[in-house]
Amino acid sequence: MTAPANFAIHQGTLERQWAFAECIDGLARHGVRALTVRRGDVEEYGADAAARLISDAGLQVLGVSRCASLTESEPARISANHDENLRALEVTAKLGASHLAMICGGLPEGSRDLPGARARARDALERLVPEARSMGVRMGLEPIHPMRVATGCIWSTLAMADAICADLGEGVGIIVDAYHVWWDPRLDETLAAAAGRIYSFQVSDWLHTTGSVTGDDRGMPGDGVIDLRRMYDGVRAAGYDGFVELELFSADNWWTRDPDEVLETAFARHRDIFGDPR
Amino acid sequence: MTAPANFAIHQGTLERQWAFAECIDGLARHGVRALTVRRGDVEEYGADAAARLISDAGLQVLGVSRCASLTESEPARISANHDENLRALEVTAKLGASHLAMICGGLPEGSRDLPGARARARDALERLVPEARSMGVRMGLEPIHPMRVATGCIWSTLAMADAICADLGEGVGIIVDAYHVWWDPRLDETLAAAAGRIYSFQVSDWLHTTGSVTGDDRGMPGDGVIDLRRMYDGVRAAGYDGFVELELFSADNWWTRDPDEVLETAFARHRDIFGDPR
Repeated sequence: MTAPANFAIHQGTLERQWAFAECIDGLARHGVRALTVRRGDVEEYGADAAARLISDAGLQVLGVSRCASLTESEPARISANHDENLRALEVTAKLGASHLAMICGGLPEGSRDLPGARARARDALERLVPEARSMGVRMGLEPIHPMRVATGCIWSTLAMADAICADLGEGVGIIVDAYHVWWDPRLDETLAAAAGRIYSFQVSDWLHTTGSVTGDDRGMPGDGVIDLRRMYDGVRAAGYDGFVELELFSADNWWTRDPDEVLETAFARHRDIFGDPR
Repeated sequence: MTAPANFAIHQGTLERQWAFAECIDGLARHGVRALTVRRGDVEEYGADAAARLISDAGLQVLGVSRCASLTESEPARISANHDENLRALEVTAKLGASHLAMICGGLPEGSRDLPGARARARDALERLVPEARSMGVRMGLEPIHPMRVATGCIWSTLAMADAICADLGEGVGIIVDAYHVWWDPRLDETLAAAAGRIYSFQVSDWLHTTGSVTGDDRGMPGDGVIDLRRMYDGVRAAGYDGFVELELFSADNWWTRDPDEVLETAFARHRDIFGDPR
């Protein structure tokens, strides 16, 4: 069984099984057309070589994951992270990717100042906008589940991230990750308001047994409680017609399985839930 | 050191150390004036006897925790839970408590219909309103952290709960639990909008090391990342002038310690962060 035409995958889904080049080869073998890559792996492989490898395999890059933290409070760190983010934008441009994934970071060590962290993240993002535009690269803001706000990302809702996008304008949009936002009472209205600014739709499932705040015990679509089809209809109604990207971090289950089995299962679930426009 | 005058405690904070009557005695010995009780413990002890015990000890009851699920979809279960909630309201009345804590339940087994669960919870609550009013009992809606939406409570934000309160009117208000709502980008505006409808302010801390979605590895106020003083100022600006209630569920730490040590530590932290109006 080959991949559905609108199936994409986050490289982290098979991070324990496949190294970078092996992953590109394996995905191509299964007919996958698009993926999100880990920036660290690309930089280690070399961005130019990675771009060739991916292109030669017939794949395209959706997201580059991820930016350096935008919430730092010390000037030296703010400056260092800005420079790192400029390099991340360059990598994103070299790969011809849809966007750089902006997961902005949590509270700096020892801080309780959430409003301050939010303000700094916005400022740091704003400073990147002209640079990103001049490189022709988009930035996708990804709200992360509120259970990760201390150590992961202080953007906790789509509404919060989309308000920043609406303010900063062209080339700044949102990434809708079902696992992170499915609980949100304002989800429907936010998706509608974000029309034209949705860069990506990522899926996995929230299991009844989910016990950890790390985000590493997600479920295969269909195994949990998220109405993924309903959310897919919502992003499509808001004008998104791109890939449905599997981002399945699963330390105790899917990361331990044969990658071919993971992909075959994922393809079947994808066809059941989202269909295949092929 | 005796308890600050505005210090209250949730019985669950010492649930591994003290049985019900022992807890009342211990709290009185430390000069604590108010507590939230577990309904199961009260029913087991006998509601009338519990009311006398608490009153004789010079304590008052804030909340009664908690209602039966409001999200059930099967008629027989909806009916059984309604009846259980009428009995819970009666217990609340007997104890002369401030309110019954409404933690409305998660998704019923096998369901992915979050909008449906929300609608049913609202309907079930609405049916209780005239009964609660006739008993002179208030109902406090408690939004629970979004990481608990599948199995705990589908009210995930204060704004969502407060909208229901504003709609249903007198005798229906919100419980602000810092641990559950501190991450919310709309917190400040929601507290302001809820003026006059805040029934309780509960505190504990979110630790950088919080790893579980169960809610049972909370931190002592001051040990984590929540700006509790800022939130306290917010609830007071919204007209709340009641107790600050410690609700500290901590399986690996505070539940394993000597209860006198837990209380002494809590009193000191309380005075540091919230002051003592005595």
